[in-house]
Amino acid sequence: MAERVLVPWEQNLENAPEGVAGDVFDGSGEPAADLSRVAFWVVPYGRTQRLDLMARMPGLRVVQLLTAGYERALEHLPAGVELCNGRGLHDASTAEHALALVLAAQRELPRWAGDQAAQRWEPHYTRSLAGTRVLIVGYGSIGAALEARLVPNECEVVRVARRGRPDQGVHGIDALHRLLPDASIVVLTAPHTPETEGLIGAPELALMPDDSLVVNVGRGALLDTAALLAEKGRVRAALDVTDPEPLPAGHPLWEAPGVFVTPHVAGGSDTFYPRARRFVDEQLRRWAGGEPLANVVRTGG
Amino acid sequence: MAERVLVPWEQNLENAPEGVAGDVFDGSGEPAADLSRVAFWVVPYGRTQRLDLMARMPGLRVVQLLTAGYERALEHLPAGVELCNGRGLHDASTAEHALALVLAAQRELPRWAGDQAAQRWEPHYTRSLAGTRVLIVGYGSIGAALEARLVPNECEVVRVARRGRPDQGVHGIDALHRLLPDASIVVLTAPHTPETEGLIGAPELALMPDDSLVVNVGRGALLDTAALLAEKGRVRAALDVTDPEPLPAGHPLWEAPGVFVTPHVAGGSDTFYPRARRFVDEQLRRWAGGEPLANVVRTGG
Repeated sequence: MAERVLVPWEQNLENAPEGVAGDVFDGSGEPAADLSRVAFWVVPYGRTQRLDLMARMPGLRVVQLLTAGYERALEHLPAGVELCNGRGLHDASTAEHALALVLAAQRELPRWAGDQAAQRWEPHYTRSLAGTRVLIVGYGSIGAALEARLVPNECEVVRVARRGRPDQGVHGIDALHRLLPDASIVVLTAPHTPETEGLIGAPELALMPDDSLVVNVGRGALLDTAALLAEKGRVRAALDVTDPEPLPAGHPLWEAPGVFVTPHVAGGSDTFYPRARRFVDEQLRRWAGGEPLANVVRTGG
Repeated sequence: MAERVLVPWEQNLENAPEGVAGDVFDGSGEPAADLSRVAFWVVPYGRTQRLDLMARMPGLRVVQLLTAGYERALEHLPAGVELCNGRGLHDASTAEHALALVLAAQRELPRWAGDQAAQRWEPHYTRSLAGTRVLIVGYGSIGAALEARLVPNECEVVRVARRGRPDQGVHGIDALHRLLPDASIVVLTAPHTPETEGLIGAPELALMPDDSLVVNVGRGALLDTAALLAEKGRVRAALDVTDPEPLPAGHPLWEAPGVFVTPHVAGGSDTFYPRARRFVDEQLRRWAGGEPLANVVRTGG
């Protein structure tokens, strides 16, 4: 009995190379397919709660995620199964949302939305993005995509990453305290690791200028929520990820002054889907051809 | 008795060339200066209701506006007085706000602001700017500044202006009806003239695809408000200028589905002020040196 694939989109089967057959499972309900025959599983986006299905796939050889994070999948991954992540698929969507949050905060879009709800026309002039200095902390592929979007807005971008790369103009994280006092805007695009947890806490916020802005599209734990609340609006924030997450009703972050919250929607906008479908097509082509897969985060067998 | 200048910022007097003296009037209250001696008046930004002061300036030779529009100033301008406008000073600020409106609409920022007010965490995935086709209608200096900001967002920009300039890739306005059906987003950056009034009305909206977006940072009269309302959200809108303006409480546009309103704040954000102060410095230097002024819209003498 031939090995089969289980993919989230019909298109992946239509585009599948010769000899590759399988079923579609988009994550809703229960999979209709015979799981015992699945060798290559693409976990549907936003359905990591179904990672437990791996236990019912004895013939599994490859698990493909559509997220960049893969910690939870490792917990379920049987020995000998190869794991690939979705690194890069969310870059454009996430960078675009980060830019939207920066502009929303500088141009006070949440205020205007509130004024519209109150049918109130009360113009006043706002901050700009032009003329600011923006630190991108966790400079990688999302950071580079954001930088490309920021530069024509006439702002200065400063790159910070875990390891400095002086030849590429990237400061090491050890330079952070020196850089914060001159930053108008700090955008967090780092992953959540033991090293990045609480990266921006009370000491870092204290170094930021009055009325500066921190934007988080990385992970909630990068920013110390209590420390941000203690700033009482002196440092503003625009957060797509929070700690805790989801943010429960009644949490003080919801109505903290100068804080704008979006519910972890940076990575999954329309532009993600065609990229993700194409990527799955390419991975199946590589797999069928015996080529090494892309984005391998744990090798198999 | 020497001719004097009346300027909005102290800095302009500090930087004034040898032989140029005068006073500061920022538009609030009544000017303390002796108006009879004013030869060069820089009308304070946002204070066009004080254009009537010209009548009290018998020695007036130059009026400098900080807005691009100058129709109202012409009504007050005495014969023989030269008029200069503020063309270009608002480009960066306006283009930045136009980008903010485009992103706000695509990424549903007004919805998230409302959800935050209700302390509601209800993620869903949204449209992107990436992958869209954006028509810039009234392609000039603001349009070019917007285009520069759009292009790294992975969208396609189509330029439309009153007169086509095929060698520069600019379509004439006669191509508008042909271009609208393939546009995801239409941004209006044109001035208000008899030709542009009602430029986007019922026939044009009808040509736009379902769920497309019209953004107006030009003048309210470019877009037919009644026609937009009749779309009932089929075409979405993000409007910094409206007709009527200011939008009165109770007007149906405030709560029209898919419509986001900001109260005419595109042009005057922080980045405008240093540009405007520098421009006034330069104009005073030209004037003192007997050079032709920049941005002359009506010659004197």
